[in-house]
Amino acid sequence: MIDLRSDTVTKPTPAMRQAIAQAIVGDAVIDVDPTVDRLEKLTAEILGKEAAVFMPSGSMTNQVAIRVHCERGSEFLCEADCHVYHYEQAAFAQLSGLVAQTVAGPGGVLHVNQLRSMIRPINDHFVRTQLVCLENTHNRWGGRIQPQQNVVEICQWASENGLRTHLDGARLWNAAVASGISEKELARPFDSVSVCFSKGLGAPVGSVLAGSTEFAAKARRARKLFGGAMRQVGMIAAGAVYALENHRDRLADDHEAAKKLGDACRQYSSLSIRGDRVDTNIVVVEIDPDWGSAEAMLSRLNQQGVDCFAISPQAIRFVTHLDVTESQIDDACRIIQSIAATSAA
Amino acid sequence: MIDLRSDTVTKPTPAMRQAIAQAIVGDAVIDVDPTVDRLEKLTAEILGKEAAVFMPSGSMTNQVAIRVHCERGSEFLCEADCHVYHYEQAAFAQLSGLVAQTVAGPGGVLHVNQLRSMIRPINDHFVRTQLVCLENTHNRWGGRIQPQQNVVEICQWASENGLRTHLDGARLWNAAVASGISEKELARPFDSVSVCFSKGLGAPVGSVLAGSTEFAAKARRARKLFGGAMRQVGMIAAGAVYALENHRDRLADDHEAAKKLGDACRQYSSLSIRGDRVDTNIVVVEIDPDWGSAEAMLSRLNQQGVDCFAISPQAIRFVTHLDVTESQIDDACRIIQSIAATSAA
Amino acid sequence: MIDLRSDTVTKPTPAMRQAIAQAIVGDAVIDVDPTVDRLEKLTAEILGKEAAVFMPSGSMTNQVAIRVHCERGSEFLCEADCHVYHYEQAAFAQLSGLVAQTVAGPGGVLHVNQLRSMIRPINDHFVRTQLVCLENTHNRWGGRIQPQQNVVEICQWASENGLRTHLDGARLWNAAVASGISEKELARPFDSVSVCFSKGLGAPVGSVLAGSTEFAAKARRARKLFGGAMRQVGMIAAGAVYALENHRDRLADDHEAAKKLGDACRQYSSLSIRGDRVDTNIVVVEIDPDWGSAEAMLSRLNQQGVDCFAISPQAIRFVTHLDVTESQIDDACRIIQSIAATSAA
Amino acid sequence: MIDLRSDTVTKPTPAMRQAIAQAIVGDAVIDVDPTVDRLEKLTAEILGKEAAVFMPSGSMTNQVAIRVHCERGSEFLCEADCHVYHYEQAAFAQLSGLVAQTVAGPGGVLHVNQLRSMIRPINDHFVRTQLVCLENTHNRWGGRIQPQQNVVEICQWASENGLRTHLDGARLWNAAVASGISEKELARPFDSVSVCFSKGLGAPVGSVLAGSTEFAAKARRARKLFGGAMRQVGMIAAGAVYALENHRDRLADDHEAAKKLGDACRQYSSLSIRGDRVDTNIVVVEIDPDWGSAEAMLSRLNQQGVDCFAISPQAIRFVTHLDVTESQIDDACRIIQSIAATSAA
Repeated sequence: MIDLRSDTVTKPTPAMRQAIAQAIVGDAVIDVDPTVDRLEKLTAEILGKEAAVFMPSGSMTNQVAIRVHCERGSEFLCEADCHVYHYEQAAFAQLSGLVAQTVAGPGGVLHVNQLRSMIRPINDHFVRTQLVCLENTHNRWGGRIQPQQNVVEICQWASENGLRTHLDGARLWNAAVASGISEKELARPFDSVSVCFSKGLGAPVGSVLAGSTEFAAKARRARKLFGGAMRQVGMIAAGAVYALENHRDRLADDHEAAKKLGDACRQYSSLSIRGDRVDTNIVVVEIDPDWGSAEAMLSRLNQQGVDCFAISPQAIRFVTHLDVTESQIDDACRIIQSIAATSAA
Repeated sequence: MIDLRSDTVTKPTPAMRQAIAQAIVGDAVIDVDPTVDRLEKLTAEILGKEAAVFMPSGSMTNQVAIRVHCERGSEFLCEADCHVYHYEQAAFAQLSGLVAQTVAGPGGVLHVNQLRSMIRPINDHFVRTQLVCLENTHNRWGGRIQPQQNVVEICQWASENGLRTHLDGARLWNAAVASGISEKELARPFDSVSVCFSKGLGAPVGSVLAGSTEFAAKARRARKLFGGAMRQVGMIAAGAVYALENHRDRLADDHEAAKKLGDACRQYSSLSIRGDRVDTNIVVVEIDPDWGSAEAMLSRLNQQGVDCFAISPQAIRFVTHLDVTESQIDDACRIIQSIAATSAA
Repeated sequence: MIDLRSDTVTKPTPAMRQAIAQAIVGDAVIDVDPTVDRLEKLTAEILGKEAAVFMPSGSMTNQVAIRVHCERGSEFLCEADCHVYHYEQAAFAQLSGLVAQTVAGPGGVLHVNQLRSMIRPINDHFVRTQLVCLENTHNRWGGRIQPQQNVVEICQWASENGLRTHLDGARLWNAAVASGISEKELARPFDSVSVCFSKGLGAPVGSVLAGSTEFAAKARRARKLFGGAMRQVGMIAAGAVYALENHRDRLADDHEAAKKLGDACRQYSSLSIRGDRVDTNIVVVEIDPDWGSAEAMLSRLNQQGVDCFAISPQAIRFVTHLDVTESQIDDACRIIQSIAATSAA
Repeated sequence: MIDLRSDTVTKPTPAMRQAIAQAIVGDAVIDVDPTVDRLEKLTAEILGKEAAVFMPSGSMTNQVAIRVHCERGSEFLCEADCHVYHYEQAAFAQLSGLVAQTVAGPGGVLHVNQLRSMIRPINDHFVRTQLVCLENTHNRWGGRIQPQQNVVEICQWASENGLRTHLDGARLWNAAVASGISEKELARPFDSVSVCFSKGLGAPVGSVLAGSTEFAAKARRARKLFGGAMRQVGMIAAGAVYALENHRDRLADDHEAAKKLGDACRQYSSLSIRGDRVDTNIVVVEIDPDWGSAEAMLSRLNQQGVDCFAISPQAIRFVTHLDVTESQIDDACRIIQSIAATSAA
């Protein structure tokens, strides 16, 4: 099976396994685990932030960031299709009692003018608006890179209006490689940034949340609350360190592969690319209802050895990654085309 | 000052005060208060529901309804400009850990087709979609009456999909009088309905939440939790009973007055009516930025003895009610026109 | 039926009803209601606090106080049998995510030495200790007055250790009358105090929360969140003002009546007074299991025209109040004695 | 430094590292990770439960269990000194809005008779009592084993009264080895059990929560909410599997070592053992204030190369484990004795 469901399916390489096996560790709850410490410092440096905190998942880094930034009785602004609102079981509300005020950005991209009227008046009828969350690259909009100009304008406006800013940078690595803008530059406008090692970078587990020293201390406390404080977790952090040092540049290959898949789809009128672009390693393909449903497409793909996700009734998503070879991509393109060329029924 | 800020400013009439002074009461927490009981039964009957619960405010009836309908880890669907999402300090999130998924309905009116794709898949990434909330009349869209056809279709679809339905009917009385459709008919499609007595009906305090007997028992428990269980509150319920029996029909006068205000505004190109209609007793007036801001308009109105609210940077809201005379409305129309005829500066 | 279940059953007197009927009112949500304002100022003055906020119930005043004093992630210390922990559906946890750390005080009275070791270390394993709540008089310990020396020492220690202090003074009026210490003096050591008008004072509805101006503003906001902001609620506040001005001194009669009931019980070995004292208007009577259960006692009392509550399997509670006459108390004493003199079976 | 602070400081052995390096893994969020699956099945079998769920920490397993067992508006009963109430930042309240009703058990051991009166009446004043949590071995009472007779009686009573039961079995392995009663037998009375691999068993990270199939599905959903769903976490689970298969029996050595430490302390009147027994691998030593404080003792121990925790102003705690040799224990005994023999000053 050519597995294009997600870049989270990537497995540790032999070299990464060796790094893990040899990790120097400590009790990260009551002491410092040297490997975790190294990962946190390395990531903070890459992102240009004072401090960073290692956590078991990107959902935890995001939801901890929202909790720390937003006081009781407040809300955050975000794009209507973003991950923190949709895919994290709304922990911001369930666990932290907070509210999202959403606004749809064309192609998953917000412009500051959309946000200007969204700050609520100071009045006992309203929650307080305290945070803006962005996502780069944007998952549901096909790995879309946020134009840095938009990001800078939004964060500047936020800062001028007393709002904090958080970046869900689960795939910030992809944005950096594809745009040629460094992670530090992409992260600069934000008060906090979360990044994942278990997606395109291929580490087995782990995310890091970076920000100011004070923010990191609060995040560490919230991590304990959420049950994310782990002991000799340098074993896992070692995989992330390895990924950081060895797997960033090769993301360009994944982007190349995704473009190939996109081009293959574009040749058929029954298929279109959401947002009409393939910026990084994700391709969201909208299926013409005249052809059939996403489920039908998925079933046909599965029969011929390609796996992916149906992310809505008429859309499927391909994600390229470390564990898919060039020839598998070529095979996948052929299979997609052969299916698209026929009708579903 | 001609007070057009809200129909909540209405004060009890002498007759209502007399009814209050003579109310037969009991300890409504540990016994039954006969007047509260009468109000609950009367309201339940008018709304065609099995049972009803008296509470101190419409925010409490709405937020209790949402809490009771939505289990832990779930969300409700609502129109993006509705009262329960905007004006109630997001108690659904702060107090109950729940999420709103919003969608903008043109003119504040939702169509079932907008909702069809909003039910989330059953999957550990997502909260569960469990409730639809509608608002009739719709406050921020100028007292707009929900077309009953839309309501019926939405509630039927909700029911077929296992969702519950709640109606924020704070001004359902206005909808009934203006549409000629009875409250019972307007309430029929919903699992629960909340109504207010302290708005157009002119009672000093109080709202009622109606639904099934089982729902009402849960609502009563949540009312205690929220601190809304009161003792000899028949004193207050007596005002609501009086309002119910004496002040419903006269809402037609308020609607007439609002139409006059709307017509006065329409004559000036610098003013337009939000949604281009005046269904009931609310008029939201959008002000052309070329004329000036809502604050400027408000300031000019105040100087000439008219009060209202600026509800956004370019919109003001007039609400007609029991305590405004016909001649005051005529005065207000003249004043609005004289201001609109000049520029703000 | 001689109703000794609670002092909450008291009904407004004709004079109080007249005061209510004539109340000058306003929209207390968007304006100031003059009668509410008067009640708040009067209560603040009596309690020696800067400001006060009117709410629909004592549960709301207490739970709002706890929410405002305790930041997210903190706890309060309280006596194990107190009202805010037991009888308010734990709103502090359900609505505010806070924790109670309880400690049993003999007779419902805490000593500062019991609290000294309860402040948690600053460490990510722990919540932060931020508040001490006391209750005066103490309901479940039979209307017990807190010795002022204990109160002063606890509040001083709290203040020295950065903890805030809240007094649940639902029956503070009784404590003042019985002890001869003014409400102001009793309230002085605390950051906030809540008092009820619908208990011994005989007003139909209402409680007030008093504290600093800043605290009151936060409490007002939380009141809106809880759904406790009401419109022309001066109608109700007028009853409380009347009660405050006319019904405080007469509480001495209730205390006298309670002592009579206590003395009547003491004559029988099958009955004993919890805490062995009757400080104010509550008598908790422990029933010897050899005699029978509280349910059996209650049933016998009911048959003979006396009503009260069974508050545990072997305890019943009598509360004296405005609506019980002296001769009813004498009757009740005779009935209790006749029942105690025989066995349950 | 002889590190007796906690058994959580143990580091993976070379053989465990090798098992980790060779783990067969998958994406445990969207697929099944074979090693996680093996660990979950193996643990479920050992504990005699239908299903089990792997999580990053014991705090998460406990707090997820409480959340799943307790509906909104309910409470759990627990011993006043237990871990879930004290050391987990009260996530049950902060994240889940739940309440603990605590009761002190002599030596950390509860008897069913203490619980009988703690179930709250069904009444809108009260939360609902839904769960009993026990801890075996009991951390703050020096690794005390819960007498199985007490456990059986409590769980039977709970079941008869509609309460669920959860066991915090972070160190259940120690209880089993020391008592000779199998984990399955110790776990049998409970609806759910959580166990840790990163304490005495020496694995780097991880806990498992076991219960019925239905319970496990809900726990899995709550794990996602808390941010505990990890990808190729078989890397970590492999360490736990290794620990389970190789490190259980050797806990007897830790118990032997703890007894030695206890015996060494007992010889000095300035030191006493909390609960006067050393059941397993934890020794809580109470220090006579005449000797000095726990801080003073800790400081002297540190100077001579022994590390431990001060867990209260007059108590320190020693924990024995895999990474302390027999001769280190002998050294520690000598050092403790030499310090105890002198005064603090």
